[in-house]
Amino acid sequence: MTPVTIDDIRAAAARIAPIAQKTPIWRSRSFDERCGREVVFKCENLQKGGAFKIRGASNFLLSIPEADRPKGVVGFSSGNHAQAVAIAARVLGMPATLVMPDDAPKSKLEATRANGARVVVYDRFKDSRERIGQEIAAETGATLVPPFDHRWIIAGAGTCALELMEQAPGLDALVVCLGGGGLLSGSAIAAMAVNPGVRVFGVEPEVADDYAQSLQKGERIEIASPPTIADGLRTTKPGEITFAVIRELVDAVLLVSEEEIRETTKFVISRTKLLVEPSGAVGAAAVLYGKLPPELKKVGVILSGGNVDFETLAAL
Amino acid sequence: MTPVTIDDIRAAAARIAPIAQKTPIWRSRSFDERCGREVVFKCENLQKGGAFKIRGASNFLLSIPEADRPKGVVGFSSGNHAQAVAIAARVLGMPATLVMPDDAPKSKLEATRANGARVVVYDRFKDSRERIGQEIAAETGATLVPPFDHRWIIAGAGTCALELMEQAPGLDALVVCLGGGGLLSGSAIAAMAVNPGVRVFGVEPEVADDYAQSLQKGERIEIASPPTIADGLRTTKPGEITFAVIRELVDAVLLVSEEEIRETTKFVISRTKLLVEPSGAVGAAAVLYGKLPPELKKVGVILSGGNVDFETLAAL
Repeated sequence: MTPVTIDDIRAAAARIAPIAQKTPIWRSRSFDERCGREVVFKCENLQKGGAFKIRGASNFLLSIPEADRPKGVVGFSSGNHAQAVAIAARVLGMPATLVMPDDAPKSKLEATRANGARVVVYDRFKDSRERIGQEIAAETGATLVPPFDHRWIIAGAGTCALELMEQAPGLDALVVCLGGGGLLSGSAIAAMAVNPGVRVFGVEPEVADDYAQSLQKGERIEIASPPTIADGLRTTKPGEITFAVIRELVDAVLLVSEEEIRETTKFVISRTKLLVEPSGAVGAAAVLYGKLPPELKKVGVILSGGNVDFETLAAL
Repeated sequence: MTPVTIDDIRAAAARIAPIAQKTPIWRSRSFDERCGREVVFKCENLQKGGAFKIRGASNFLLSIPEADRPKGVVGFSSGNHAQAVAIAARVLGMPATLVMPDDAPKSKLEATRANGARVVVYDRFKDSRERIGQEIAAETGATLVPPFDHRWIIAGAGTCALELMEQAPGLDALVVCLGGGGLLSGSAIAAMAVNPGVRVFGVEPEVADDYAQSLQKGERIEIASPPTIADGLRTTKPGEITFAVIRELVDAVLLVSEEEIRETTKFVISRTKLLVEPSGAVGAAAVLYGKLPPELKKVGVILSGGNVDFETLAAL
């Protein structure tokens, strides 16, 4: 029994419908030919705020009791979550403060501010964003919006796979990028409830393998702040709830190199004409570089985000 | 009476269905807010080959008499047309030779070769691509595929607006980039046949205003090879058929600066997450920079292509 059920995810889908978009799916002949499978991309890069994060953030904010809403929310995030909290807060008329690393992509910092949120930057290698966030929450009475390890966030994130399973019936596998685990745990619950035969895989950068190590050890371990180009997947330790769900439901966690992430990001952008950020291309990288069992022919891949600087594109 | 009718365009739509894709439409809240209109993007950047050109090319190749097909085809183009001819030829099993400028984006040269076509490069400031193409055709017996000024090309290109009018009923205006005029003339015929009230606009770079000058003068004039970033719109003279159609049906030709093209390309990519090339963003630039009459509220814009180098993106 998981702490989040398919009913929670269906309820979240109804709740967030006025804020989050139903994103399209897309196919690429070039990608299919290159990897030898039938791949269905779920385009969360086209989501409001440019990433799947609005799903969890809006479900969370809409679940806060009415009396607490005027005091606002505070979030900490490597970027896309912050932007999602800012957008959801603006739509719902709530004040928002976001704690973001000072080396987050400029586009993410600017977009968060443009959405009317206060941004507090911190040094990812020295400060604790959790501590800063908690201090702000204690001072202002704002509700802390965790980036992934909360059932409201997981239920919201799961609405993405719920849509995909309805848009692309009969998938053999679902491949999802893995940072904190909110998207993967929600996706696994939704996908396996709709299609019990589907096999669900998480994908981490080799240098950010906190989940792979934790699963092998059977307990949550912490790694040093990982230097991956996939800035959305730089979490250092699995969440408690997300780890439990992923351990129970997910087939395996696959690893991809920085070079594989870079090449896949370029390939997806230049062939599909969909802008995808490195973090968002990690799932596609696992498929492109043959990390999946060969018998899985029809594969869903979540392109989880598209917030990439022109400087980052140039560096690719 | 135009030389191409809506029936020709409907016949082309049926003919090319196995080769060209029906592309989606897309909306952007950011774009609408910034320009104060309701804009529907027709995503030809997601078309096979990354641009609308496959529509005209495949309609042309499928209209060549059976007996001439084994001798193949030869085309000359600034890039997207060449790629489209190569793809259509490969699908139909016909040999293809393409004459392309030596300063065309690398991605376009490579993609054309990857599609199995022979590429002959020329110096855009010294040689005549028409002459080189005609020589190859004379030597090999191949059929010359003109880039725009032919009724089969125009009818094929017009299928794009035909789809759009069905996907987005009730448009006040349709805005189309203008190089040789194949897309604009076909679009005008299709759009006004389906929705007689729609006003159709062409958009040229200020530095590539051969149509604007020609329309003012009442005859086709030739300009020097224009130094615009919109490499797909570097034609120097209107076509004969396309000029006649555009003169009759199109409301006005609007001009946009190089800076407006660059800014719009960046804005569209970073906000919609759809990769668009500068040539493909010229129509959007006219809308974003307020060149349309204010009373036109619901506007269709063709994002005509998405074949852009990472180097070009970096330069933006």
